[in-house]
Amino acid sequence: MAEYEQILFDVEDHIATITLNRPDKLNAFTGTMMNEIIDAFDRTDADDDVRAVIVTGAGRAFCAGADLSARGDTFSQGGSDVQTDAGVPRDGGGMTTLRMFDSKKPVIGAINGAAVGVGVTMTLPMDIRIASNAARFGFVFARRGIVPEAASSWFLPRLVGISQALEWSYSGRVFEADEALQGGLVRSLHAPDELLPAAREIAADIAQHSAPVSVSLTRQMMWRMLGAPHPMHAHRADSRAILERGRSADAKEGVESFLDKRAAVYPDRVSDGLPDVFPGWEDPAFE
Amino acid sequence: MAEYEQILFDVEDHIATITLNRPDKLNAFTGTMMNEIIDAFDRTDADDDVRAVIVTGAGRAFCAGADLSARGDTFSQGGSDVQTDAGVPRDGGGMTTLRMFDSKKPVIGAINGAAVGVGVTMTLPMDIRIASNAARFGFVFARRGIVPEAASSWFLPRLVGISQALEWSYSGRVFEADEALQGGLVRSLHAPDELLPAAREIAADIAQHSAPVSVSLTRQMMWRMLGAPHPMHAHRADSRAILERGRSADAKEGVESFLDKRAAVYPDRVSDGLPDVFPGWEDPAFE
Amino acid sequence: MAEYEQILFDVEDHIATITLNRPDKLNAFTGTMMNEIIDAFDRTDADDDVRAVIVTGAGRAFCAGADLSARGDTFSQGGSDVQTDAGVPRDGGGMTTLRMFDSKKPVIGAINGAAVGVGVTMTLPMDIRIASNAARFGFVFARRGIVPEAASSWFLPRLVGISQALEWSYSGRVFEADEALQGGLVRSLHAPDELLPAAREIAADIAQHSAPVSVSLTRQMMWRMLGAPHPMHAHRADSRAILERGRSADAKEGVESFLDKRAAVYPDRVSDGLPDVFPGWEDPAFE
Repeated sequence: MAEYEQILFDVEDHIATITLNRPDKLNAFTGTMMNEIIDAFDRTDADDDVRAVIVTGAGRAFCAGADLSARGDTFSQGGSDVQTDAGVPRDGGGMTTLRMFDSKKPVIGAINGAAVGVGVTMTLPMDIRIASNAARFGFVFARRGIVPEAASSWFLPRLVGISQALEWSYSGRVFEADEALQGGLVRSLHAPDELLPAAREIAADIAQHSAPVSVSLTRQMMWRMLGAPHPMHAHRADSRAILERGRSADAKEGVESFLDKRAAVYPDRVSDGLPDVFPGWEDPAFE
Repeated sequence: MAEYEQILFDVEDHIATITLNRPDKLNAFTGTMMNEIIDAFDRTDADDDVRAVIVTGAGRAFCAGADLSARGDTFSQGGSDVQTDAGVPRDGGGMTTLRMFDSKKPVIGAINGAAVGVGVTMTLPMDIRIASNAARFGFVFARRGIVPEAASSWFLPRLVGISQALEWSYSGRVFEADEALQGGLVRSLHAPDELLPAAREIAADIAQHSAPVSVSLTRQMMWRMLGAPHPMHAHRADSRAILERGRSADAKEGVESFLDKRAAVYPDRVSDGLPDVFPGWEDPAFE
Repeated sequence: MAEYEQILFDVEDHIATITLNRPDKLNAFTGTMMNEIIDAFDRTDADDDVRAVIVTGAGRAFCAGADLSARGDTFSQGGSDVQTDAGVPRDGGGMTTLRMFDSKKPVIGAINGAAVGVGVTMTLPMDIRIASNAARFGFVFARRGIVPEAASSWFLPRLVGISQALEWSYSGRVFEADEALQGGLVRSLHAPDELLPAAREIAADIAQHSAPVSVSLTRQMMWRMLGAPHPMHAHRADSRAILERGRSADAKEGVESFLDKRAAVYPDRVSDGLPDVFPGWEDPAFE
């Protein structure tokens, strides 16, 4: 267990669990929490023992949104205290979700309770979202006089369609888990005490059967190609990836173990085995 | 009530209603109707009293498509009589939908009857589409020897998926409201006399509870980001938006009214309070 | 019937059927099969008698994936033996799907059995996928130590959403037809002996009622606009398309036959009647 103030961090059976941990504040989001989440993803990326990441909340909420203890001044300095060349502080929710977007490991959101404001937008770059049937959701920004953040204007319409995204965001009302399921925001609902086991089952399936480097490349390719103008961009990347991975020890083991009907043991590691398969790719800077 | 020939325009309870009004012609689309719709959106954008827009049809149809009274010559001069530098007349459906795309107010389509050809493609840039269970739909272009227009090749696959978009457009057949619901083209079906009340309920929820400037920015952010290649583009915009809106009177009121459990009264106005949060954004020109 | 080794090719009632034909090998994909599929699409593009294309498999499988007879060396030379300036062999699945992406005729996948690895990714650029209820699917790449190919990182998230795409691809498990339907991968399920008739019914509706040039332009517009950043790009294309098609013999016939309530007979041909409506469009090269 690492030393964090506002999250818990734990690795077991190749699965890292990040738990938002201000239960008496309904895990309200702060700059400290943001820094700790980002740090935790740096660790899961670097640790070859971690093959999947679960994010959940302690207590009865997942994350109730920004900490409003400064009342009407909460957002008066912008989205964070990060100074930038552009003269605009970067939104803290967006720094968090862009870090998750670049995660080298699959990310599963286990939404155990209220997920409101940044509490729900921070889950959008996670690969899979499952929820407790006691969870509640709210894109409440328009009712606070601000706007959807955390790059949710990019993520949300891609997940649930532009019409559903706009309807939830225009209204700002809080809605139940059933509506989140119906609208495509979460993949499945679970009884509260079956939520984490369900998340772990998804993670364990990946950790046990899939080559970690293949999984990591898959994540990077699919999220990046979601914004690409033509399938040729994918073809450039996957031609390189098939070449690099095709001659790897993992591919030899993957095919032979399959033909021999035995469990695979993949030798390659994400930390030093992730090929660069995106010719000319540059991560866009904040400007 | 404004002076229009082929539409009705009305504002009540902060909701503008645009009614296509050639009921004896099943509201068939004309150049006049196009100009009047565009003019009506200029007015709703400029009028701070308007917080949402409903578009519907008079009589038993929503819009039966292009006026075919010129028979086989209907499309022989192209999509409109607008001259352009490119030497190609701009498609009238597209001028209409691109105007709606830029609307500063949420747009709800209340599809009361047949929506065929441009009658259905004109609804695609609307944020939310609801329909009478007596409505019928048809992307009939291939059966008339022309092609899907009104920029529907961009909008439709984003709303219903590429496979459904192509199947409806290849076939050109007219289909029932149930199929439109099933395929994701409309959000919900209603009895004919409950259609407008349902549209007004959605609009009223926005008008009563959400800060108009926040709603307007949300609309602009989500539609624009639907075409952006990377979530960083959203992060640039929402960092600016959180800064501008976070220090606004609306944000102070939004948070404080929430904490005090009272209704909010938002002072800011769309007409002079909409910050520019898209660094370097230029609307692409027709060329 | 053309002379191919690993596929069957047949045209009847304006519908071409391409049948993967290595039934004793579960139609496992090879370089020869790739070349023959590409050649078949060159023929369907060029043949005005063909108005739709069905792709299916002979025997009990659709396509069980790459031929693994070279065991652990299967992918050791990359995705094909095609030399490129980039020094990377092009992935064979991707050459196949990019060819289908550019097809001038609608493509319907009739997935009659196992569709695994490239067997399923090759179906993603098809316009409509229907399946036998005995079909099975698997994005198994991560369990073989390689990665999703055939540009599926571009196609799959656009078809089923990023979350479902990632879950199937991370896990690599084989799943049943019901799950494919539920997840949006296929449009409908059919009893095995009703699968081809269902595909033919969809194709016949297009072949009988829709203008072939209109259908071909529709295909090109929708797939290309799926990657366009703004609806103006569609407006440029469809303004040109409405002008070109609007003065065509097909449009005259399409409108007049509709008004006269008779079947249309469209004179225009795809082989010499397909206007260029994409100003400045260049197909991106492999690099």
